[in-house]
Amino acid sequence: MESPAYRTGIGASDADTIHLLGQNLATDLLGQITFGELAYWLITKRRPADGQRALFEAVLVALADHGFTPTAIAARVTLLSAPDSLQGAVAAGLLGGGSRFLGVTEDAANFLHDAIARLDRPPDSDDGWDTVARQLVTDTKAAGRFVPGLGHPVHKSGDPRTPVLFDLARRHGVFGAHLALFEAIGRVHPAVLGRALPLNGAGVCGAVLADIEIPLGVTRGVALLARCAGLIGHLAEELIDPIANDIYRAVDDHTDYRPA
Amino acid sequence: MESPAYRTGIGASDADTIHLLGQNLATDLLGQITFGELAYWLITKRRPADGQRALFEAVLVALADHGFTPTAIAARVTLLSAPDSLQGAVAAGLLGGGSRFLGVTEDAANFLHDAIARLDRPPDSDDGWDTVARQLVTDTKAAGRFVPGLGHPVHKSGDPRTPVLFDLARRHGVFGAHLALFEAIGRVHPAVLGRALPLNGAGVCGAVLADIEIPLGVTRGVALLARCAGLIGHLAEELIDPIANDIYRAVDDHTDYRPA
Amino acid sequence: MESPAYRTGIGASDADTIHLLGQNLATDLLGQITFGELAYWLITKRRPADGQRALFEAVLVALADHGFTPTAIAARVTLLSAPDSLQGAVAAGLLGGGSRFLGVTEDAANFLHDAIARLDRPPDSDDGWDTVARQLVTDTKAAGRFVPGLGHPVHKSGDPRTPVLFDLARRHGVFGAHLALFEAIGRVHPAVLGRALPLNGAGVCGAVLADIEIPLGVTRGVALLARCAGLIGHLAEELIDPIANDIYRAVDDHTDYRPA
Amino acid sequence: MESPAYRTGIGASDADTIHLLGQNLATDLLGQITFGELAYWLITKRRPADGQRALFEAVLVALADHGFTPTAIAARVTLLSAPDSLQGAVAAGLLGGGSRFLGVTEDAANFLHDAIARLDRPPDSDDGWDTVARQLVTDTKAAGRFVPGLGHPVHKSGDPRTPVLFDLARRHGVFGAHLALFEAIGRVHPAVLGRALPLNGAGVCGAVLADIEIPLGVTRGVALLARCAGLIGHLAEELIDPIANDIYRAVDDHTDYRPA
Repeated sequence: MESPAYRTGIGASDADTIHLLGQNLATDLLGQITFGELAYWLITKRRPADGQRALFEAVLVALADHGFTPTAIAARVTLLSAPDSLQGAVAAGLLGGGSRFLGVTEDAANFLHDAIARLDRPPDSDDGWDTVARQLVTDTKAAGRFVPGLGHPVHKSGDPRTPVLFDLARRHGVFGAHLALFEAIGRVHPAVLGRALPLNGAGVCGAVLADIEIPLGVTRGVALLARCAGLIGHLAEELIDPIANDIYRAVDDHTDYRPA
Repeated sequence: MESPAYRTGIGASDADTIHLLGQNLATDLLGQITFGELAYWLITKRRPADGQRALFEAVLVALADHGFTPTAIAARVTLLSAPDSLQGAVAAGLLGGGSRFLGVTEDAANFLHDAIARLDRPPDSDDGWDTVARQLVTDTKAAGRFVPGLGHPVHKSGDPRTPVLFDLARRHGVFGAHLALFEAIGRVHPAVLGRALPLNGAGVCGAVLADIEIPLGVTRGVALLARCAGLIGHLAEELIDPIANDIYRAVDDHTDYRPA
Repeated sequence: MESPAYRTGIGASDADTIHLLGQNLATDLLGQITFGELAYWLITKRRPADGQRALFEAVLVALADHGFTPTAIAARVTLLSAPDSLQGAVAAGLLGGGSRFLGVTEDAANFLHDAIARLDRPPDSDDGWDTVARQLVTDTKAAGRFVPGLGHPVHKSGDPRTPVLFDLARRHGVFGAHLALFEAIGRVHPAVLGRALPLNGAGVCGAVLADIEIPLGVTRGVALLARCAGLIGHLAEELIDPIANDIYRAVDDHTDYRPA
Repeated sequence: MESPAYRTGIGASDADTIHLLGQNLATDLLGQITFGELAYWLITKRRPADGQRALFEAVLVALADHGFTPTAIAARVTLLSAPDSLQGAVAAGLLGGGSRFLGVTEDAANFLHDAIARLDRPPDSDDGWDTVARQLVTDTKAAGRFVPGLGHPVHKSGDPRTPVLFDLARRHGVFGAHLALFEAIGRVHPAVLGRALPLNGAGVCGAVLADIEIPLGVTRGVALLARCAGLIGHLAEELIDPIANDIYRAVDDHTDYRPA
C-alpha cells in the first residue's frame, strides 16, 4: 500500500531552504517580523494587518500572567518534583488552561459571535448595539446563564485592562462588531441585572480576538500561548528563588486525614 | 501555624491595578511592548535592550516550527483523540521538547558557556577564537563526544538560518563571546574532524540566547515558547484540514504483530 | 491568617505508620490486596465486594491496549523526542484519553444511567428491559444522536469482549440494571435502526463500571488507568525495538507542502 | 514509496479477535488474570511467575499514594482550573513523576544493579553481602554521593513498608541479589556513615523490581502506573470534597510581591 501524503501549509524544508507559510524563513522572516506577528500568521494563515498585529500583541501581553494561579502552582510544584524536565512543568501548567480559568476568553468570543450571527445586519450606532445587548442580556438571564466576560472577583469596580484594550482597538482601526457588542453589554447590563459588574479583561480579549479574525476554535490557543510565556517566567523564577516546596509543605503539613 | 508568604517578582493584582514585573500592566505595558519583549522580561526580570529584544524575537521566529516533527505529530494525534481539550494537544506536543529534538539549543548554549568560563579571558580576535575553538573541538572529539550545534540531517551544506542570525547579531550589537566561539568552531572544525559540517540553526540560537543573557537553565524554555506557537498553528490547521487520522490509519493498518 | 486544613480520606503518614484509606498500608494492605482492588478502593472509598473486584480487574484488562492507537503513537514519538522523560511520554499518551477514543466507556455509562434514572422502577424481566430499550433507541434516533457503545469499525459482527464480560458479570453476581439495559439494546436495536450493530467492548465496560458502582464522574479515570499500563508496555517495547522514528520519517518524508 | 511496517508484540486486532501479548484477550485473559499481572506482562513480555506477580502487585500497592505530594497537588489544581479534562489533571500529576519524588525507586534499582554487575560472582551469605555493601557504601561516600533508598524525612526510625516487602519477597521465593545487597546496606551503613538511616520504601521497591526482572529502563514506569491510581483517587475525592480552591487561595492570598 502506498503511503498517504500529509498536507500542510505551515512549513517544510529542503537542503537549502526552510519554507514557512509560503515564505523563506531565513531571508523573508528572520529579523523582519516579531514572534507575535508570526504566531498570528501561523494561526490564521494570513499575515496580520498592522492593527490586527498590534492588538494581537496586546492580547498576548494582557493574558501572559495572573500571579499565583492554579496553572502557575501546578507548573512550580511539578518542577520541584521533576526538575529534570522543564517541558513537563510547562505542560503541567498549560493543562490548567481549560474551561474555567482560561475559558472566559473563548466563551466571550463564542458568545458574542453567536449573538452577532443571529442579527440580520449589525447596528451602526451605539444605540443600536444597546438594543441588541439589552435583549441578549435579558435572554441570557432568562435562560439562567451568565454573560461571559462580565464580573471579576478582584477588580470589582473595573478591570484596568478593559478600557485600554477598547482604546487600542479604536486607535488601530480594528474596533469591530464583537467589541461594539461587548461594550454595549457593559452599558446596559446594570438595568437588566440590577447591579453593575465590570467587563473583565479575559472577556474583552475574547472580543478583540474575534474582531481581529482569530478563528473561534483556537482563541483558547492564543490564551495558552500567552500563558506559556508567563509559566516560563514563573519557572525561571522558581529556579533561582524557589517557593514550590513551601507550597507543598504548607499543604502536606495541614493534612486533615478523615478516612471514611 | 501561620501561612508562609510566597515571594514573586512577576505579578500581583489588587482591586484597581494589575502589577507585572514592577510595571502597571494596563498603563505601562499594554500596547507598548510586543509579546516577545514581555517574554524576555518575564524570563530575565530585565527589560531587554533593543538589540537583545530584536535577537530574542528572531530566535523565537527561527524555532517556531520544523514541519512534521514528533512534537507536531503528537499534538495532532492527541487532538484527534481528545478534540475537547486543545490544551491537552498543546501539552502533548510540548512534552516532546526534551533532550533530543529541542535540546540542541540548550546543549549548545551550555557547551559554549562552559568553554568560555574556563578561559582566563576571552580572545579579542578571530585568530584568538580560532585557537580556542581548535582546542575545544579537539578535546571534545578526544572525549568521544559531539560538538552540539554541528551537523544537520537535511541542510548538509549549510543551515540557512545560521548566517542570517550571525548577521542580525552583528547589526544589533549583541554579537558576543558565545557567537564568536560558535563561529570559530565553524571555521576550524573541518581540519580537526576531517569533514565540514554545517553550524545548525538550533545551535546558533543557543549561542544567541547565551549572548543576550538568557539564563542557561531556561534556554530550553525559550525553545518551548517558540514551539508553542508552531504547535498552535498545526492544531489550527488540523481543525480545518485534518491529517491526524491519516497518520493513525497509516500506522495501525501497517501493524506487524510479532508476539514473543 | 491561619492556614486552612486540607481534608482527605486517602492517605497520611506519621513517623511510624502510613495510613491509606483508613488502613495501615504496611500491615493491612501490602501483600494482601491486588493493585486493582486498591484502585477500586481509592476511587470509591469502599473496599469492593468480590464480584465488584473481579469485574473491575476485567475492565482494566479489557481497556489496557488497543494496538497503535493515537495514544500509543503520541507516547512513542514523545519518547523519541524526549527520551530523558518517561513520565512525559506517558502523559502525552494519556492526554489522548478524551472524548473520542476513550470516551465511549464514559458516554455509555452516562447514557445508561440517565435512562435508568428516568424509570419509575427498573423492569424485572428481559421483556421489560426490551420495552425500555426500544423506546430509548427510538428516542435517541429521533433526536439525531447515536447510542454510545453501539458499533465498531473493526469488529463488525461482534466485539469478542462483550459476551465474555456479560458472562463474567453474571457469574460474579454483579449483572445489574446498566448491563441489563445495554444487553436489551443489543437485542432490540436492529428492528429500530434497520441494521444490526455490535455492542462494543468500550460500551460494555461502561455498563459494568456503572453496575459495580464506580462514580460516573470518574469512569474516564478507570479507562485512563487501564491505558496507562498499555502505554508503559508500548514505551518499554519502544526502548528495545523502536518504531517511532519510522513513524516520524514516514510522515515527514511525505509532507505535501501547500502554502496558502 | 512504500509504507513501512510497524513492529509490535503488544497487540493487534482483526474482525473476530483481539490479540494481546500472543494471547486471545477475550478467551485467554479476561476474567483470568489481574490488571497487575497484565501490567507486568505488558512491561516484560513475559507472564510473571507467581512470586513475581505477588511482589509486583505489592510494589504497586506500596507506591500508589503518599498523601498531598506535589503530584497530587498538581493534579487537583489542574482539575480545578480545567474540570472538563480529567485526563489533563491525571497527566499534570504524572508529570511530577521525575527524578526527585518518584526517582528513588529507579535510582535504587540502578545503583544496586550496577554494583552487582561489577561483582565476579554474587556472595552466597549475609557476611559476603555485608562485605560487598561495606565497600559500596564506603566508595559512594568517598565519591560525595548518597546511597539511593537510604533515609526518609518522616519515617526516621524505619519505613514500615520495608520489613514487610523483605518478608513478602522471602515468602514468595523472589528474594534475590538486589534485595540481599539492599538489606546488607541496611546492616552495615551505620558503621561507615556514623549514623543509622532507614531503608526507605521507595528504595526497597526498586530492589524488588530489579529482583523480579523488571527492565531497569522502565522501573520509573511502574512507579508512574502505581501513582496513576493514587492520582485518580485524589481526583475522585476532589470531585466530591474539593480542596484545590483552598490551596489556590492560600497561595494567592499570601503573595509577597517583590518586583526587582
